[in-house]
Amino acid sequence: MKYAIIGTGAIGGYYGGMLAKAGNEVHFLLRSDYDYVTQHGLQVNTPSGNFHLDNIHAYNNTNEMPPCDVILVCLKTTANQHLKQLLQPLVSHPSAPTPLVILIQNGIGVEQDVQTMFPDLQLAAGLAFICSAKTKPGIVDHQDYGQINIGNYSADKHRINDLVVDLNKANIQAAEVDYTTARWKKAVWNMPFNGLTVALNTQTDILLRTPSTRQLVRDLMYEVITAGRAQGADISYDFIDTMINMTDSMTPYSPSMKLDFDFHRPMEINYIYTRPTDIAAQAGTPMPKLKMLEQQLLFLQSLHTPTS
Amino acid sequence: MKYAIIGTGAIGGYYGGMLAKAGNEVHFLLRSDYDYVTQHGLQVNTPSGNFHLDNIHAYNNTNEMPPCDVILVCLKTTANQHLKQLLQPLVSHPSAPTPLVILIQNGIGVEQDVQTMFPDLQLAAGLAFICSAKTKPGIVDHQDYGQINIGNYSADKHRINDLVVDLNKANIQAAEVDYTTARWKKAVWNMPFNGLTVALNTQTDILLRTPSTRQLVRDLMYEVITAGRAQGADISYDFIDTMINMTDSMTPYSPSMKLDFDFHRPMEINYIYTRPTDIAAQAGTPMPKLKMLEQQLLFLQSLHTPTS
Repeated sequence: MKYAIIGTGAIGGYYGGMLAKAGNEVHFLLRSDYDYVTQHGLQVNTPSGNFHLDNIHAYNNTNEMPPCDVILVCLKTTANQHLKQLLQPLVSHPSAPTPLVILIQNGIGVEQDVQTMFPDLQLAAGLAFICSAKTKPGIVDHQDYGQINIGNYSADKHRINDLVVDLNKANIQAAEVDYTTARWKKAVWNMPFNGLTVALNTQTDILLRTPSTRQLVRDLMYEVITAGRAQGADISYDFIDTMINMTDSMTPYSPSMKLDFDFHRPMEINYIYTRPTDIAAQAGTPMPKLKMLEQQLLFLQSLHTPTS
Repeated sequence: MKYAIIGTGAIGGYYGGMLAKAGNEVHFLLRSDYDYVTQHGLQVNTPSGNFHLDNIHAYNNTNEMPPCDVILVCLKTTANQHLKQLLQPLVSHPSAPTPLVILIQNGIGVEQDVQTMFPDLQLAAGLAFICSAKTKPGIVDHQDYGQINIGNYSADKHRINDLVVDLNKANIQAAEVDYTTARWKKAVWNMPFNGLTVALNTQTDILLRTPSTRQLVRDLMYEVITAGRAQGADISYDFIDTMINMTDSMTPYSPSMKLDFDFHRPMEINYIYTRPTDIAAQAGTPMPKLKMLEQQLLFLQSLHTPTS
């Protein structure tokens, strides 16, 4: 299968790099690193060994990319207003079959919105559990983990299977999971910690060692699970303890939204907060505390006036 | 009637000073300003004219104070753990009648707790609408307003009447109001603005000009009114518009909790947030967003570790 990587950053660079290293034909869309990578190739440093890809298929425009079987969208959702224009040439090659599009993105509601843009698209969610960073142009530093779970949204089942097989062959841990459960399970951690570390300018361990915010994190997780269950997610309330214990044992950590805020980048408020709180309210399972967190984040974002 | 002022700061200094100037016998409890005021008297600057009180009855210990008919408690509620010891000598003079105690304090639940300390006490709430500051030792600067509403909690009705008459004679606008309605009405403004200006490090006008926090303020006011109505407060939901419009027309303002936080003093979290959210939850009208604000404030307070 041919692959397209839309957004060659910490995530896209790692998964695309691993797939290319394993011998797959991978086409990379780049923006700021395009010139550098065209000249110098892509370097991926991983705990299991570093590797370099010369002469990669690099593009700075999706119009020039060939038809691909699988498209991995690895952009931040704050760029999703450009997705229709970006994907259009890739999903409408006259002679090629409709590609399978995997949204390796945060939050709730992204598949729904992309499906509205392209009603016939075969879509799935990619839930990446990975510590990775793009430290310099063309250099991806993969620190830990790397598993990706695929939740089928509207694709043919066998295409998901084929993708999982390809990923495993490329030494990427991958599995198919229930779409709704996976998206909401990830939100159980993401919704409390991303916003609270920004709103209270702190980090995960300090939130958890303070009794009032330890309880608040639990309250927020409870809201997410209640809303998720109403959407059909199979999550038990015991999952709160699992997530708290896991976070207690983690190295103190700045979630992606905290990094975005600190570096004056736009935050993914829409898909991490606005969409899920709206979906939950419409279903009669409102998330009042998470709605308040969204309102606080929008306030902080408006003071910041991000540049991109 | 003889008056005791417990806490001669911006509030106690103003009301006690006005009562003394009108010829009442007023006994002032002071702490840090005791030596200064004993030597130099008390200076009250007001828009209607400044005045100076020489040779005032000043004390640094309630054991030495004479029996009084009315006790105005003008301490911050963060000092209320000392109230039992402070009031004990004043409410147990063997030959004197039980005094009327007015709690000129913020929040919900203070009368209940003081009544538990002294079951026979005649208690009322004093709701002060005043801009006043103690700018130097022994100097009170009264800038604007000054009205005080008295809400009867457990006192004989005629004693409240007598107090209101005395206050009016001293050129203090005063009126008797319904206790429950008055306490909760004040909370409609206090609960959103005190905490949000701290949690988001901002001021009232910036909160109201940002759409998300303007809506959040309304949401929080809605929670307070719903909880207050369940307690018997007579507040219509139109009061939200009244409070928003009033705040829109106010000079940008730092609520007392923001000043406390900025100057590293303890915040009145217990009576402004913890008690009302507990009372509301017990009554089946929980205030989830205000509970979250309490949790955030407790977190910020714990980082601060206030000194007094």
